[in-house]
Amino acid sequence: MIDTPILVPAGFRFAATTAGIKASGKADLALIEAPYGASAAAVFTRNLVVAAPVAVGRKHLASSAKSIRAVIVNAGNANCATGKPGLAAAEKSCNQLAKALNAKAKQIIPSSTGVIGVPFPTDKLFKAIPSLLAARGTSEDDAMAFARAIMTTDTRLKTASAELVSKGERATVLGICKGAGMIHPDMATMLCYIVTDVKASPAQLNKLLKSTVDRTFNRISIDGDTSTNDTVLLLASGASNLDLSKSKVSEEFAKALESVCASLAEQIVTDGEGVRHVIHLKIESAKSEREADQIARTIAHSPLIKTAWAGADPNWGRILAAIGRSGVELDPGKVDIFFGPIQVCKKGMAAKFDEAKAHDYLKQAHVEIRVDLCRGRHTLSFLTCDLTDEYVHINADYRT
Amino acid sequence: MIDTPILVPAGFRFAATTAGIKASGKADLALIEAPYGASAAAVFTRNLVVAAPVAVGRKHLASSAKSIRAVIVNAGNANCATGKPGLAAAEKSCNQLAKALNAKAKQIIPSSTGVIGVPFPTDKLFKAIPSLLAARGTSEDDAMAFARAIMTTDTRLKTASAELVSKGERATVLGICKGAGMIHPDMATMLCYIVTDVKASPAQLNKLLKSTVDRTFNRISIDGDTSTNDTVLLLASGASNLDLSKSKVSEEFAKALESVCASLAEQIVTDGEGVRHVIHLKIESAKSEREADQIARTIAHSPLIKTAWAGADPNWGRILAAIGRSGVELDPGKVDIFFGPIQVCKKGMAAKFDEAKAHDYLKQAHVEIRVDLCRGRHTLSFLTCDLTDEYVHINADYRT
Repeated sequence: MIDTPILVPAGFRFAATTAGIKASGKADLALIEAPYGASAAAVFTRNLVVAAPVAVGRKHLASSAKSIRAVIVNAGNANCATGKPGLAAAEKSCNQLAKALNAKAKQIIPSSTGVIGVPFPTDKLFKAIPSLLAARGTSEDDAMAFARAIMTTDTRLKTASAELVSKGERATVLGICKGAGMIHPDMATMLCYIVTDVKASPAQLNKLLKSTVDRTFNRISIDGDTSTNDTVLLLASGASNLDLSKSKVSEEFAKALESVCASLAEQIVTDGEGVRHVIHLKIESAKSEREADQIARTIAHSPLIKTAWAGADPNWGRILAAIGRSGVELDPGKVDIFFGPIQVCKKGMAAKFDEAKAHDYLKQAHVEIRVDLCRGRHTLSFLTCDLTDEYVHINADYRT
Repeated sequence: MIDTPILVPAGFRFAATTAGIKASGKADLALIEAPYGASAAAVFTRNLVVAAPVAVGRKHLASSAKSIRAVIVNAGNANCATGKPGLAAAEKSCNQLAKALNAKAKQIIPSSTGVIGVPFPTDKLFKAIPSLLAARGTSEDDAMAFARAIMTTDTRLKTASAELVSKGERATVLGICKGAGMIHPDMATMLCYIVTDVKASPAQLNKLLKSTVDRTFNRISIDGDTSTNDTVLLLASGASNLDLSKSKVSEEFAKALESVCASLAEQIVTDGEGVRHVIHLKIESAKSEREADQIARTIAHSPLIKTAWAGADPNWGRILAAIGRSGVELDPGKVDIFFGPIQVCKKGMAAKFDEAKAHDYLKQAHVEIRVDLCRGRHTLSFLTCDLTDEYVHINADYRT
């Protein structure tokens, strides 16, 4: 996506600077400002252990979703498991930025990613606010600078944008995210910011965001771990002439939002730590979406299956066994499994197939695996990846 | 346990031979015979995908648990996902052995471990039955030969025995098992056979076996995968003078059975594929055993945590985050975490501890990790292990 020009919606300014929180000395503090305010909706981590910025962000959103003025993001310190001092630090950061922007603290959403359990460097953040504000701009480069500053173990910038057109009027959706399975050395964190210039109420955004996240970010898995900081935030400036109150606009916006989220979700899996094979899993002919999801997750979280994928091993037996222990009460004797065009399991038994060809198919960077349960009408897609020795090395190395 | 002399209960004969099912040419067919019959109870895999011998074994046990005459086990072919021909093969093996032993087919329990989805080599098994019968014996060496023949990727023989004494009478319990995370190249399989010379009804055995398995084999995890062939079988010959109808004997037997199962469970984890650290996980002060179990499993199945253990990384944040996503509604602000004697997390926040010392502690082959939830009176122990690059290599290698 780096080579594709990104579309930047009107009504937002982006900035990044170096506060000295990342040990690498790279840019680590970033801002999205909505000078005239923006409607907002967010999906936060379901983990009960939540980082201080998530707790503060939830609170601020609840009271000011109609007019959020800025998001401030730091990388290098997750401000998690930091107790009351951590909460105070997140609040103080919002206060400080609010003063500079002539806004209220509750109009600021804070985000953090990085090491857990380390006191938050509030002073470093405070000192960097002037240079952060000085860097504000509305260009593609400014948005890219934001995207770069929030990266941690990511090896690629992750952005996606889309345009919607209705009756000659245009609006755009831009998504920027980070996440690569987990953040070395500490936490899996996915942070995602989506900005758009449509006119929308927080309730409209909320409804669309939740269902879109369920179909995109909630259908990917690298290692099954859920971060304490995961956040997807959607901001609508209303700077365009397209209004979500019109059902036609709402439909087009939903499509644009889904294409942005789906692209970012795939970028996250592709950039997953140590990933050599991205697996496009399809569960077909399930009795319900719920049971398809349950089966997809059981397959996607099995180390036994993920290591077989790493070796391009056409070991369908492990997949059948995972289906059998998924908790879905089905007849394994009806299950068909396909690796791309090659059927490897027919009615729960070995199909006749060429092992060498299946091995070659699985060697590709992107692989499609289809499981046909032959018992209903629901289909579900899920993105996951292999488990490689490199993943182990990245996550086993002692922090020094 | 190899160096400890094992106790062989009266009323059983053991045998092993080479049927040519294992590609290695090693012994691969094994027998436990109870010439005068034995009461039996079993716990089978919960996977809906079950191997043919499990289906047949369940059926035979249901009709003949009062007098099982033999268990026949082969390694090298799991007889799973083999459809009706597989079921017929398992039935035929029982018929053939029953004829030779002058028993009924339903008094024979079959077991298989090895590759999935490959037609069962019934002929090889049939041809080896005479040499199997010729090898029968009651010595420790005979029991060891049985233990050796059922091994697959196991690097060590796994046996444990215990004695119970009541009013001057003695009886013994001998357990033999195999399992090393999963069986290269296909399935995780744990097969366990426990023989004893106490007098007992199938109902008495069943009750004790189920609760013991729940506290031992069901509290270990290498990779979270459940095989299609898992079996724990308990046979009681009644050749001693100790009768489970007496509550004192039943108590002593329960203790002996638990010590045997606990030892075998620990041997399995220690011999797990690629395992360098065995983790003794203790969840303390939980509101119920169930929630403690849920938390233990979430920790034990997290690749993020397991890779940190591989690197002896005192990364308690990952453990706290796993507790937070376990589904148990608790207050993370009350959680304490200890690595052996070192407290690393206090009330959900970083405790003051020496990272280098914690790192050294975690470098040991056996490590204790204690999680104190500070909310109830239930405690649970769980055995698990790290996830190493060697595990990935063992399971990623393409089958050739």
